[in-house]
This record gives sequence, structure tokens and C-alpha cells, in this order.
Amino acid sequence: MGRWQAGTRERLQRAALELLERRRWDDVTAGDIAAAAGLTERTFYRHFADKREVVFHGQERFVEAFLDAVRGAPAGASPMAVAAAAVRGGAAFFPPGGRDRSLARQALLDANPPLAEREQHKLAGLVEQLAAAMTARGVDAAAAVLAAETAGTVFRVAFARWLAAADARPLVDVVEDVLAELRDVTARW
Amino acid sequence: MGRWQAGTRERLQRAALELLERRRWDDVTAGDIAAAAGLTERTFYRHFADKREVVFHGQERFVEAFLDAVRGAPAGASPMAVAAAAVRGGAAFFPPGGRDRSLARQALLDANPPLAEREQHKLAGLVEQLAAAMTARGVDAAAAVLAAETAGTVFRVAFARWLAAADARPLVDVVEDVLAELRDVTARW
Repeated sequence: MGRWQAGTRERLQRAALELLERRRWDDVTAGDIAAAAGLTERTFYRHFADKREVVFHGQERFVEAFLDAVRGAPAGASPMAVAAAAVRGGAAFFPPGGRDRSLARQALLDANPPLAEREQHKLAGLVEQLAAAMTARGVDAAAAVLAAETAGTVFRVAFARWLAAADARPLVDVVEDVLAELRDVTARW
Repeated sequence: MGRWQAGTRERLQRAALELLERRRWDDVTAGDIAAAAGLTERTFYRHFADKREVVFHGQERFVEAFLDAVRGAPAGASPMAVAAAAVRGGAAFFPPGGRDRSLARQALLDANPPLAEREQHKLAGLVEQLAAAMTARGVDAAAAVLAAETAGTVFRVAFARWLAAADARPLVDVVEDVLAELRDVTARW
């Protein structure tokens, strides 16, 4: 991806987010977004597979933060230890000062169900990538899927709690709370 | 919901599934489905909030199977014991002889990403209902969310394994395997 293309995607994303401050998702077309960025609809679809993708551009780096942590976990770490490392890695991607931006993004998803559905789909894809990365480390495939799904759960729960909290504790601290709670819950069957 | 209305929804669903044997989801309109059932598009939208909903009609009974199990779990059961009961209850909803129908439905979702996304959204809704039902039993809210999410994980993993297996073991047996694996995975951090 060239420098120029990267700039185009970001311009389209900025235009989309600005339009969505005033209009509902269903009332904004890919052509509207392109026009607001001074581009054509054809250019939009050269950069994004569908209209919703423009909102999720840049999320690859977030996924990489999870995957890097899996790859960097100590040899011999248990599947759950690798899962915990993955969530810690993903959470570190969100700086404490970035909560307002995450809150605005969440409000956008909450107000537009098609975007909330795509977000769930993206998280399901992240879990699949985590499971594959764990399997590549030699974790048994069934254990990898369960640990990766559990990592997804911890992240979702911690992220929602981070956004809902009255104070603004760092996400990485909220993740530690949730990991401890999960350890406690799964210790008693 | 009257008897006549129930029949209408089922007619529309049958017509949709028949059309989807020959055509892609994006090439089928709500009007096409209605016409194939001898009804109008207006009638379609009186029964379903959007086009995708027609595929998921009847899923309420599946959700109730999970929720009934939560409500019926013994007093004092731990959150994970309630979660396990919920998954067992949901799995019992799928009779051993129904795997071919579930396979056909899964093939439809796999071939049509908008339907797969809606399915994920429905499962996320089920998890929320499970957490609420656990909280109503007096389970601590944070533990309820983690246990409900874990129930969702066990069900998803077991269901996928059930459909992928060369043999046709009952889903309830596959669920027991996955519960045992999860217990093992979460015992080692």
C-alpha cells in the first residue's frame, strides 16, 4: 500500500465520521462520503470492499497488538497464559488519554446497528486469528480455540467496563480486574 | 400472535429458504420472498423488521431452551455451573436427527455473509439474555457476564464441532467434551 493510498483511506474515514455526526448511517451513501472527501464513489470502492469498512480502517494495528503478544509469549506458557498476554497486548494499544475517542466511536456504533454488527464480526475474526496464532505456537487446536474465545470475552467485557466507568482508569488495569474475576469464576463449577 | 400470523411467518420463511437454494442473498428482495409465498412486500414487513429476520424466525424457542435451564438450575449453583446447565439446555434443543437440517442452514450462512453477521449478532443477544437471567437469580453482575459469555463460547465451539464431525454424535455429547476441555484449559494459567 503506497503512501498516497494510505492518505486516501484516512481522508475517506475522516469524511465518513464527520458526516455521521449529523446523519444516520442508512442516510449516508458511499458516494456521499467520497464527495465529502473530494473523491469519486469509484475511488471509494477501490479502497474499501463495502460502505461499512471505512469505519473500521486502521483496526489492523489493533489486531497486530494482540497477535504480537501471542507470538512473544514465553515458550511453554499455558493456553490461558497466552490468552491473557494477548488481551494485555491489545489493551495496551489504547492509551489512557484516548478514552474520549473510544467513547465517541462506541456512541456511533450504538446509534447505527449495521456498524455494531460489523464490529462483532470483526471481533469474531480477531478471535479466529488469535486461535490460529496459538496453534502456530504448538497449542492444541481445541485448547487454542477455547483460550482465544476466552481472550475475546475478557477484552469485550473489560472494554465495555472501561467505557462505562465514571472514572477513567487505564484499560490495562480494567483488564487485570476482569482476568482475576474470570480466574475466580472458572475456579468454581 | 394469532395462529394465522404464525402461519404467515412460516410460509415466508419457507419461501425464503427455497429461493436461497437457487439465488444469492443479495439477489433476493423482501418483495421476491413475499411474492413466492403469494403475499405482498407490505405483509412481509408487517411480520419482519428487516429482510434478514425471516431466516431467523423460530429461534426464540432455542433461546428459551437456554433461559429455562438457567431458571431451573439448583439454588446455590455456581455461575459456571449455571452456565453449563444453560448450554446443556440449549444443546438439547437440537435432536440428533436434525444435523442435516443444521448443516444446510450453516451452508446458507457461510455462503451469505450478511446472514452470518446477523447470526453472530443473535448469539451476542443470547449471551446478554443469559447474563440477565443469571443476575435475576442473584449471581453477581460481573460474574454473570463472564459466565454467560463462557456459555456462548462453549455453545459456539461445540456446535461448529458437531457440524464438522465425520460421525454424527449427539450435540449434547459434544457439549460435554467441550465443557471438560474448558475446565482443563482454565485450570492452568
